[in-house]
Amino acid sequence: MKVRRSNRLVDMTRYLMEHPRTLVSLKFFGERYGSAKSSISEDLSIIRRTLHTWGVGRLETLPGASGGARLTLLYSEENAARVIDDLVKAVDDDSRLLPGGYVYLSDLLGRPDVLREVGRLIATQYVDDDVDVVMTVETKGIPIAQSVAMYLNKPFVIVRNSSHITEGSTVSVNYVSGSSQRIKKMELSRRTLKEGANVIVVDDFMKGGGTLNGMKSLIEEFGAHLVGMTVFAEGQFSGQRLVDGCTSLIKVQAVDDTTNKKITAQPGSYMEAVFGNKKEK
Amino acid sequence: MKVRRSNRLVDMTRYLMEHPRTLVSLKFFGERYGSAKSSISEDLSIIRRTLHTWGVGRLETLPGASGGARLTLLYSEENAARVIDDLVKAVDDDSRLLPGGYVYLSDLLGRPDVLREVGRLIATQYVDDDVDVVMTVETKGIPIAQSVAMYLNKPFVIVRNSSHITEGSTVSVNYVSGSSQRIKKMELSRRTLKEGANVIVVDDFMKGGGTLNGMKSLIEEFGAHLVGMTVFAEGQFSGQRLVDGCTSLIKVQAVDDTTNKKITAQPGSYMEAVFGNKKEK
Repeated sequence: MKVRRSNRLVDMTRYLMEHPRTLVSLKFFGERYGSAKSSISEDLSIIRRTLHTWGVGRLETLPGASGGARLTLLYSEENAARVIDDLVKAVDDDSRLLPGGYVYLSDLLGRPDVLREVGRLIATQYVDDDVDVVMTVETKGIPIAQSVAMYLNKPFVIVRNSSHITEGSTVSVNYVSGSSQRIKKMELSRRTLKEGANVIVVDDFMKGGGTLNGMKSLIEEFGAHLVGMTVFAEGQFSGQRLVDGCTSLIKVQAVDDTTNKKITAQPGSYMEAVFGNKKEK
Repeated sequence: MKVRRSNRLVDMTRYLMEHPRTLVSLKFFGERYGSAKSSISEDLSIIRRTLHTWGVGRLETLPGASGGARLTLLYSEENAARVIDDLVKAVDDDSRLLPGGYVYLSDLLGRPDVLREVGRLIATQYVDDDVDVVMTVETKGIPIAQSVAMYLNKPFVIVRNSSHITEGSTVSVNYVSGSSQRIKKMELSRRTLKEGANVIVVDDFMKGGGTLNGMKSLIEEFGAHLVGMTVFAEGQFSGQRLVDGCTSLIKVQAVDDTTNKKITAQPGSYMEAVFGNKKEK
């Protein structure tokens, strides 16, 4: 079977998108379409230029006999800024206020379109780092971790708050919850994280940073290495946070007293952290 | 700006894949590429035929002034059977045995490639049903629910085992855990599920079916409607299950006694449930 260029371009784009961050060989595409490697190379050039034009991704091509192509979906600075603005608008809504100054986000973090955006933003941040695994703590960080993992094509691991019988042997640490000042315990199944692994930590919300600090301890306990931390939203916190250097997509101020019930959202540290020191990706 | 067909095909395929199950208008594409609607229609025909040829998805096109295209990624019967076989091979591994006849699956359900396959299989099952929301219970069902939600482009909701302060008012039900015969409690934030919503339930593992039965009660409590239930793996269970009609991708037999430590995996009820009564999709 010989496949025409127009059909090849559609199927190659689809295939590369379903196998992000994976080197797909010219040989594989050549056999799939019954085409010469030179034709496949031209196809890949078209795909690369198209992705670049729209600021949606990067196609790296390796020439030669063992050559191939690797797709990374990410945001240009312009697209990232637009997405952050949309997220700020979605959160800036007084009806999201919950008792105690908490913010209701479950609807947003259960929407596939929002999770794609959040995952892609965070993946864009770490795309040039060496990352082996994405870590989060149950429950609400899981969808974010999964979406980042999809874009980076790396596994994610879920730290758990209590002992579950189906996990086998675990490593646990105690940590101080920054907001409530209570001692809690978190644990991770021993076989899910390897010594020396490069880890990024993601979560939905940061107040005092206690949970993030707990995960940092757990990473040390496993002999692994922390590459960076990013949260969807950073709340206000009076006092010294337990971690520093954590990136946030948005910042939220929640006021809940007898006279005022108000939520104010604004962009977090993301744009400065990711695009502050480099040219547009 | 006028964009050439080859670039249009790449960008349209990408755009449709990033907006699955969403009607994208001819007008939108026409303006994006500075092209006549007739050219866009021809592009969409090429994409539709290519997806069909490879058995990877369906492109529905609506003609006319308000027309457009809607992409659904799914598996043909042949591709589904191949993926199920791969999953069976991945689980059929004695080192996955945990004490008490449980099976270690966290590595597989933390891998983006596996989650894509699992999500796409389950989405293929329900693609012609009216589904408003995907439901699961924390913790290990969450990645599956999210992946199904991505392919169906519907939100997912997470039922929780205990009260969390950040959720606002909740509805809870008691349920009997089928395997341990204990009474437990699960709850869902009141504002996450609407009356009359059509719900599919997914989870990682079913033994006695008690957890699934709990979610069924919760759906009734919300005045919503259960469309179907699908689990990644079905374990062996001696006795009457608390739910019937649940589809499983694979079946697992775990033997853990003094003389034997063995796991045996085989295909579940999926292929019969999805392709048993119909021609290839």
